[in-house]
Amino acid sequence: MKPPIVCFVGKSNVGKTTFLERLIAELTARGRVVGAVKHDTHGFEIDRPGKDTWRLRQAGAERVAISSAQCFALIGQVSEELSLEEIARRYLADVDIVLAEGYKRGPYLKIEVCRAERSRELLCTAEELVAVVSDLRLDLPCPQFDLDDAAGVADLLEERFLGKPYAAQPHVSLRVEGKEVELKPFIQEMLAGSVRGLLAPLRDAQGRQIDLRIEDVE
Amino acid sequence: MKPPIVCFVGKSNVGKTTFLERLIAELTARGRVVGAVKHDTHGFEIDRPGKDTWRLRQAGAERVAISSAQCFALIGQVSEELSLEEIARRYLADVDIVLAEGYKRGPYLKIEVCRAERSRELLCTAEELVAVVSDLRLDLPCPQFDLDDAAGVADLLEERFLGKPYAAQPHVSLRVEGKEVELKPFIQEMLAGSVRGLLAPLRDAQGRQIDLRIEDVE
Repeated sequence: MKPPIVCFVGKSNVGKTTFLERLIAELTARGRVVGAVKHDTHGFEIDRPGKDTWRLRQAGAERVAISSAQCFALIGQVSEELSLEEIARRYLADVDIVLAEGYKRGPYLKIEVCRAERSRELLCTAEELVAVVSDLRLDLPCPQFDLDDAAGVADLLEERFLGKPYAAQPHVSLRVEGKEVELKPFIQEMLAGSVRGLLAPLRDAQGRQIDLRIEDVE
Repeated sequence: MKPPIVCFVGKSNVGKTTFLERLIAELTARGRVVGAVKHDTHGFEIDRPGKDTWRLRQAGAERVAISSAQCFALIGQVSEELSLEEIARRYLADVDIVLAEGYKRGPYLKIEVCRAERSRELLCTAEELVAVVSDLRLDLPCPQFDLDDAAGVADLLEERFLGKPYAAQPHVSLRVEGKEVELKPFIQEMLAGSVRGLLAPLRDAQGRQIDLRIEDVE
């Protein structure tokens, strides 16, 4: 159930955020739920000095959340930068697609934004790119879109990454104290995905059939 | 592995945030990892108009994250207010304790902050309260602490909620394609906690012994 991740890269000031605004509006209008990630390399300050959340963080809280009926926010220090996958897995697992701005050196699917006025050369090699968004026509093997063609890029993303994610449905059976418990298909899918995810780092624990027993003993 | 949740309630302007600052600093100095939650009933705006994160959110992104080497933040719209448990489970599962400001009507453990200058009466009944923090000496059956006695409240919280969280160690056995896979105690504990957590909302799926089979079928 991991959402696909696509990074929009490009030199500074080429219009990455502007294009992402258009694309997010387009995908949202098509009913897709978008999570966005901005990679910040300068250090940002989102909270305002003196605000309660800021004060609790200054006092030493590792993470501070603020929650209302309309909005939710979470702010935290990290000792090491979170990877984009980790952000997607922890905080955006339920969106349809994650669109990131930046991460040009990461091992992700990338679309480069390039504006003639700013530069006529790409940052990435064509092999790295899923597509280019530009007012230039470059000689490249990947699809190219105009700076205002959010619909074209949305088509590409839907076609390539937003189909039905998997065909094989897992069968999950659960017994508690020896008694079978009926599980809805959605719950089966969630359990299967979660347990397989938990076991993913264990080399010997991969296979089609998994039997797991958990028992509390004194 | 759910962190305990304690809410600091009280009339407006009694000094809840000020006391929480002291308490968070005290617990952090003792090596405890604190997550803080501010309940906002007015509607807050943490992001600044014109900032990239604000623009991506305006464009329709359901959730926007910003990540740097030092800091991480997540901002999202919600269609319905998240409960405090949900916030703790989703975003603060790995802290030692969650201290919230507000949620006076929620079914949580509560400590009331009360300052004579602001009011001589409590918001909550004594039965609801774990403790009172006040410059008054009230006739109450629960422990009372001075407004600057963060150490006293930290002692109480450590004693009551921050002991060893569980005594019974789970035994987990795993077979893949019928073959036993050896699991380190830490992995056993993680699997047991995770699967029990996944099953927690299912009323019929609670018990000491859990057998789970996952099978991929075409």
